[in-house]
Amino acid sequence: MLNEYVFNFKEGKTLGKALLGGKGASLSEMTQMGLRVPSGFTITTKTCNIFYKKDKKLWESLKEEILDELAQLEKEMNKKFGDSKNPLLVSVRSGAEVSMPGMMDTILNLGLNDKTVLGLAKKTNNKRFAYDSYRRFIQMFSTVVKGISAYKFEQILTDYKEVHHYQNDLDLNEEDLQVVINDFKSLYKEEIGNMFPNDPYEQLFQAITAVFESWNNSRAVIYRNIHEIPHDLGTAVNVQAMVFGNMGHTSGTGVVFTRHPSTGEPDLFGEYLMNAQGEDIVSGVRTPKSIELLLIELPDVYDELKLIARRLECHYVDMQDIEFTIEEGKLFILQTRNGKRTMHAAINIVVDFVLENKISKKDAILRIEPKQLEQLLHPNFDPTQLEEKQVLTKGLPASPGASSGKIYFNAQDILKAKEQGEKGLLVRQETSPEDIEGMVNALGIVTSRGGMTSHAAVVARGMGKCCIVGCSEIKINEQLKELRVGEVVIREGDVLSLDGVTGNIYLGEIKTVNSQSLKSFQLFMKWVDEVKQLKVRTNADTKKDAELAVQLGAEGIGLCRTEHMFFAKDRILEVRKMILSKTLEERNNALDKIEKMQIEDFIQLFDVMKERPCTIRLLDPPLHEFLPKKDNEIDILSEEMNISKEEIKKRIEDLEEFNPMLGHRGCRLAITYPEIYIMQTRAIILAALELKQRNQIVTPEIMIPLVSDVKELAFIKERLINEINQLFNKHNQTVDYAIGTMIEVPRACLLADEIAKVSQFFSFGTNDLTQMTYGFSRDDSNKFIKSYMNEQIIEKDPFQVLDQKGIGKLMAMAIELSKKENPSLKIGICGEHGGEPQTVAFCHQLGLDYVSCSPYRIPIAKLALAQEAIKREGENDND
Amino acid sequence: MLNEYVFNFKEGKTLGKALLGGKGASLSEMTQMGLRVPSGFTITTKTCNIFYKKDKKLWESLKEEILDELAQLEKEMNKKFGDSKNPLLVSVRSGAEVSMPGMMDTILNLGLNDKTVLGLAKKTNNKRFAYDSYRRFIQMFSTVVKGISAYKFEQILTDYKEVHHYQNDLDLNEEDLQVVINDFKSLYKEEIGNMFPNDPYEQLFQAITAVFESWNNSRAVIYRNIHEIPHDLGTAVNVQAMVFGNMGHTSGTGVVFTRHPSTGEPDLFGEYLMNAQGEDIVSGVRTPKSIELLLIELPDVYDELKLIARRLECHYVDMQDIEFTIEEGKLFILQTRNGKRTMHAAINIVVDFVLENKISKKDAILRIEPKQLEQLLHPNFDPTQLEEKQVLTKGLPASPGASSGKIYFNAQDILKAKEQGEKGLLVRQETSPEDIEGMVNALGIVTSRGGMTSHAAVVARGMGKCCIVGCSEIKINEQLKELRVGEVVIREGDVLSLDGVTGNIYLGEIKTVNSQSLKSFQLFMKWVDEVKQLKVRTNADTKKDAELAVQLGAEGIGLCRTEHMFFAKDRILEVRKMILSKTLEERNNALDKIEKMQIEDFIQLFDVMKERPCTIRLLDPPLHEFLPKKDNEIDILSEEMNISKEEIKKRIEDLEEFNPMLGHRGCRLAITYPEIYIMQTRAIILAALELKQRNQIVTPEIMIPLVSDVKELAFIKERLINEINQLFNKHNQTVDYAIGTMIEVPRACLLADEIAKVSQFFSFGTNDLTQMTYGFSRDDSNKFIKSYMNEQIIEKDPFQVLDQKGIGKLMAMAIELSKKENPSLKIGICGEHGGEPQTVAFCHQLGLDYVSCSPYRIPIAKLALAQEAIKREGENDND
Repeated sequence: MLNEYVFNFKEGKTLGKALLGGKGASLSEMTQMGLRVPSGFTITTKTCNIFYKKDKKLWESLKEEILDELAQLEKEMNKKFGDSKNPLLVSVRSGAEVSMPGMMDTILNLGLNDKTVLGLAKKTNNKRFAYDSYRRFIQMFSTVVKGISAYKFEQILTDYKEVHHYQNDLDLNEEDLQVVINDFKSLYKEEIGNMFPNDPYEQLFQAITAVFESWNNSRAVIYRNIHEIPHDLGTAVNVQAMVFGNMGHTSGTGVVFTRHPSTGEPDLFGEYLMNAQGEDIVSGVRTPKSIELLLIELPDVYDELKLIARRLECHYVDMQDIEFTIEEGKLFILQTRNGKRTMHAAINIVVDFVLENKISKKDAILRIEPKQLEQLLHPNFDPTQLEEKQVLTKGLPASPGASSGKIYFNAQDILKAKEQGEKGLLVRQETSPEDIEGMVNALGIVTSRGGMTSHAAVVARGMGKCCIVGCSEIKINEQLKELRVGEVVIREGDVLSLDGVTGNIYLGEIKTVNSQSLKSFQLFMKWVDEVKQLKVRTNADTKKDAELAVQLGAEGIGLCRTEHMFFAKDRILEVRKMILSKTLEERNNALDKIEKMQIEDFIQLFDVMKERPCTIRLLDPPLHEFLPKKDNEIDILSEEMNISKEEIKKRIEDLEEFNPMLGHRGCRLAITYPEIYIMQTRAIILAALELKQRNQIVTPEIMIPLVSDVKELAFIKERLINEINQLFNKHNQTVDYAIGTMIEVPRACLLADEIAKVSQFFSFGTNDLTQMTYGFSRDDSNKFIKSYMNEQIIEKDPFQVLDQKGIGKLMAMAIELSKKENPSLKIGICGEHGGEPQTVAFCHQLGLDYVSCSPYRIPIAKLALAQEAIKREGENDND
Repeated sequence: MLNEYVFNFKEGKTLGKALLGGKGASLSEMTQMGLRVPSGFTITTKTCNIFYKKDKKLWESLKEEILDELAQLEKEMNKKFGDSKNPLLVSVRSGAEVSMPGMMDTILNLGLNDKTVLGLAKKTNNKRFAYDSYRRFIQMFSTVVKGISAYKFEQILTDYKEVHHYQNDLDLNEEDLQVVINDFKSLYKEEIGNMFPNDPYEQLFQAITAVFESWNNSRAVIYRNIHEIPHDLGTAVNVQAMVFGNMGHTSGTGVVFTRHPSTGEPDLFGEYLMNAQGEDIVSGVRTPKSIELLLIELPDVYDELKLIARRLECHYVDMQDIEFTIEEGKLFILQTRNGKRTMHAAINIVVDFVLENKISKKDAILRIEPKQLEQLLHPNFDPTQLEEKQVLTKGLPASPGASSGKIYFNAQDILKAKEQGEKGLLVRQETSPEDIEGMVNALGIVTSRGGMTSHAAVVARGMGKCCIVGCSEIKINEQLKELRVGEVVIREGDVLSLDGVTGNIYLGEIKTVNSQSLKSFQLFMKWVDEVKQLKVRTNADTKKDAELAVQLGAEGIGLCRTEHMFFAKDRILEVRKMILSKTLEERNNALDKIEKMQIEDFIQLFDVMKERPCTIRLLDPPLHEFLPKKDNEIDILSEEMNISKEEIKKRIEDLEEFNPMLGHRGCRLAITYPEIYIMQTRAIILAALELKQRNQIVTPEIMIPLVSDVKELAFIKERLINEINQLFNKHNQTVDYAIGTMIEVPRACLLADEIAKVSQFFSFGTNDLTQMTYGFSRDDSNKFIKSYMNEQIIEKDPFQVLDQKGIGKLMAMAIELSKKENPSLKIGICGEHGGEPQTVAFCHQLGLDYVSCSPYRIPIAKLALAQEAIKREGENDND
């Protein structure tokens, strides 16, 4: 009879990743491929969920299955668990369906106690190895299962080495290790109150319990929240016979990628350490060697590893991240999984795979996570500036990107800085899961220790965050919050610049420029463009934005926020004059000046966009946003306008609002002061007329914000058309144009049929629509939205990912109502959501004509749209 | 062939009020009833609308019809228009479908010029009369048609009388009047630039134009806005042969009501002046005599008038307001209309009519305007205080009510005071249409001149505003802004108290008490209760509110806002301590103290409400609302809590929000600080348990505000039920209770089906729902909502009258969705709209179970619901 909870690696092939977890499934798979994998068994993810229902206790029938499988393992390995002569040792590892590196816990060498250690020593004829394994086990069990601070164990070890003038761990002999083991046990007793558990079965059950419990530790929860992994997947537990990389100089352990995880180059890439266990590499405590050196050290093993790597990549049709251990010259594969990679590498790999005929273009499209495309698109340092800059030091380029910022030495300080609106660089000796939140909120990460597969490197790559590791010249003093490189002292708050591509660290700030696009990326995006169905426009307010957006593939402007033009230094004064003017004449004077500037704005914008459509939104924010807040600005205005400061302050006060979000803004301004929108419309049309003179045809789309009733739109439209016709008459020339509206007020959705009658296009403003439909002020919701996510009342911040259930329902209603009245209505979206992958996929389902997003999100939106198109195609095929 | 624009009184009977206006229709009607009505014709309201489309010019075909009718009038009256021997004189009066007293313009004696005045003098053998008529005509034409200030004409007259030591107008003889006429003409020439028009036809067409134009003068627009009269009705113009009340001592003019307009008593009530024209009464320049005196002066005329009054009341089945003129002993009826009345009178009249079998109970219900019921319900002066108070003076009790306030002498000062949050009493010699806005914004009105039918009296009654007129002892000095009563000087800002029932004016402030209900009102409300279908609950936060509400007919509490309890002086400190506490212990300490007070609150409330249902809303506003704003309050708190002022200020700053309306409030507080709602729930249940001990069964309804997702409600509900069950266990006793939610966030409407699954009741919070669905901040929208109403983009302030089209659609959707999931769901409304007549009628249509409103609006809501039930009944009958 098959077990319910526990499965041997030999019988797991058909059970799949969901039940066995990624690690368990790959161990089963590899076992059945005939690779040399240490025997073992997997406790399923389902068991983890039951564990939580059973008050986090292991139950009898589960224990029985475990013991049965353990007995079989003993048979296979011809060793006995807890035996003092020939002891079976096992590793206990977590393994969820989705890889969560560094977040879950692992225990090695389980089964050792004061008796079995003697058996191990005798059997392997290596006392030092046996005691070293024992000391590692005590340390790992104490920290992982019992939560004792790892630092305290490291301290004992460090102190011991200092007293004995040892340079590194390998200098410790068996006697030394016995002393250390006793100190470790005393520490355990002191911290926990009981003796360290001697019974291997107790060790095993406690370890399994700890793995299950670690599924819900706060780091894991945060990781899942960040990566949007469901909380109810649960983790499997893998119990596997130990092989030893620390059995001497022909033993070792390592990690290897089948292609380069930063560039995608098709070469074996990885690191190893001789006479070490896996934890030594992952934790970054010792700096490992590059995998090519293994070819010199153990050429046969290297060749075998290379062959296996190729075989695994072919089997999984993806780049693999393989853990291996060499026990006295014999290669064991401990794990394989799809390797984490930079977006740069990911694109190169899928394009190579397509060119190698391994996968189809559509497969390639489906394989790239849209959100992570962003990594490719962000700026690098300006190369002209780099030459003048002094390289402070160099580390391993663990994750690409470029960032300058103030440095902070721990996660708390990064968070504190962030609260003050500052984003900084996190500098650590090495990172650990406790640092996750700090890493999320840092611009970039530097570690003085660790390699390309250390915690910091893996996590930073996953986040697409610039990261440099193993900067061994850097000496960090956490107490003083400073670092030294030779004689140079850098303190908290000083600015460094990280180049994640070269690994160079520079003193001071360096300007960035847009990254040059990869050829493979260009090719990939061509495939994407062939498949996606909606247009992708951009939100761009300036010529510069527009140029960047066109480079990144923008098919038009979906939202030009004209107020951003108003804030420019040379105009804000005129804008303020306009607002504070007492007479219509004064107001018109100021408006005339602004109009001239606006005409130039629009000429520049249209000129960049060529024939692509441009939607210009007329003034949206409440007028008080333009007024000065600081006394010296008020002074200037007072002089310029010849109005007393007191009066200006009074006016500013009069314009203040209780809830500006719901205040006198958007088209409401045009009901009370029609001349502002009229001026903007004049500028738009005059710019279009000017370009027509230059033989460039533009069709401006004039967008009225914050409409809640068709009468608002009709009132404004009538006046704008009137003005436009006067311009056409005066210039004896016309241009095509459209007048439409933002749909961002719930009431506009409810009455979209009426509004559609007088509108040529709609653009969903999902930021405001979310604020009003939820009743959440975006600027204030941070005070409670974290609690909402923690309590799982909302899954995702609705300002990041569109709430399809509520806001989406309102949008669907608006679309249905409006299309019935006006089937030719063009409909788009221009909120922040317009570049968010899940949201744009939803926009495809809604049947929108386009999405609009910030320039850097254009490729992301395109990719998400292409993926959705492919998925829907599949569905239609199945119909 | 029938005319298009102009109709003779004899042919108008079937044309109706909409086309002829109220005055024109009644003149036609009375003519056909055979009453003695001066002949004439009506230019229709439709013509007025065409007039505006034709750039405010009279056109040829219209002029032709007018001249045709004028010719016929000449025939009937056997006089000639503009004839120097036997001239026809006419009055030109406006008359819209809806009566707008004092707002539109009237011209009498039109047709007089230097020649015809001689003919009139000869024909009537009364030179004084002829010149008096001429001088009145010049004055009226100049002010009404040409807009010259009436004051300037009065000044000429006053100066002339002073020089000649005349007491009143009747002392002027024909020679005097000729001098005055010349002075009047000079004034006209000076002001206008041209001579006064001599041609009667020119006079006529200018007068008709002026009447049409007066439809859109700002006073008329304001009046229509206030009374929600559509702006496109237009006014008719009535041209009628003059009869003269100023032909000597057997001539006169007056106004009579068929029942008393303040009390409804079934007696002739009115005023007249001998040897006067109607304007003398309406303007209040001369103080008229009571109608009973006419019985002595002209007994036959009095008897005839009484008979006609009865006939008209029977004909129209309503109390009539009749204008008459006596020309040399012969009674002419110039107009009849349904008389304006106080609500007191209105109720008495309909109840009398029912008891007299003139109308049915349902007719009675339909006849009362719900909004105006409010007049009945407001407080009167505390009789115990009245005894000690000194009566300053006494006037005519023109409109009931009681109010104390600072006095102001013109509309501007009232408006200025209002801006500073002060409501005052308006004191004028007499009011004119220019004072309308001041009257709207005054607490009460006093005039030193004028009678019960003067402008001030009629308008104040229409507004339901306390008003005392004809206080002849009061001498007003507008320049000095003071009044004198004998030796007593009262200055602007001094406080007076007006008793609109007795006409007494007191020095200083007097406290008010709730008015004792009329018997007829009780009877009327009984009929209303029999007919209406929805329950009417009240919004009440205190024992006092609840007691008042029960008196006024509340059938339960629909909304108890517990935060109002938190603001009470004895608790705000504890609330502040709770908010600022640093530890859970401190917080719980403060909560414990508040809990004890809350238990007492609820015991008191339940005790008043007896078996009626009570919905208690848990804490809603953001916490910063409870924190001190003033330094001295911060000082107190700092000492009490032993926290530095700086820290308190910092905390206050931290809690501030950009858009508090969309901020951390409502159920969001309960997600982050569950202990507050748990405390409130404990208090509610403990109060209910306590009352059960006293054998009173209450079923509290616990209401969670601001829900936007079912998960919020489920999260909170689980915790509350858990707490309640613990209380039940502890006390070994249970009570029934319900847990439900406000529906006030648009998203809650969209997903009402989900929310209905875990809710026992819904209560629409239409204030917030309106704010969020429109995106209008209630506190800020005053900055633009006036423009919206002026531009007719919105018809009614959506915070006053529910927007049925938008918000109503959302409500209907929520009801449909929720009832599908939970057919037993109880649904109500508790926003400010819950007492607004149109809105509650809509609630009837939506099928709600109840509405809830402030105590004083309960009878209003009930009446509106009864009216809607009757209307719908009619519809069903027609099906």
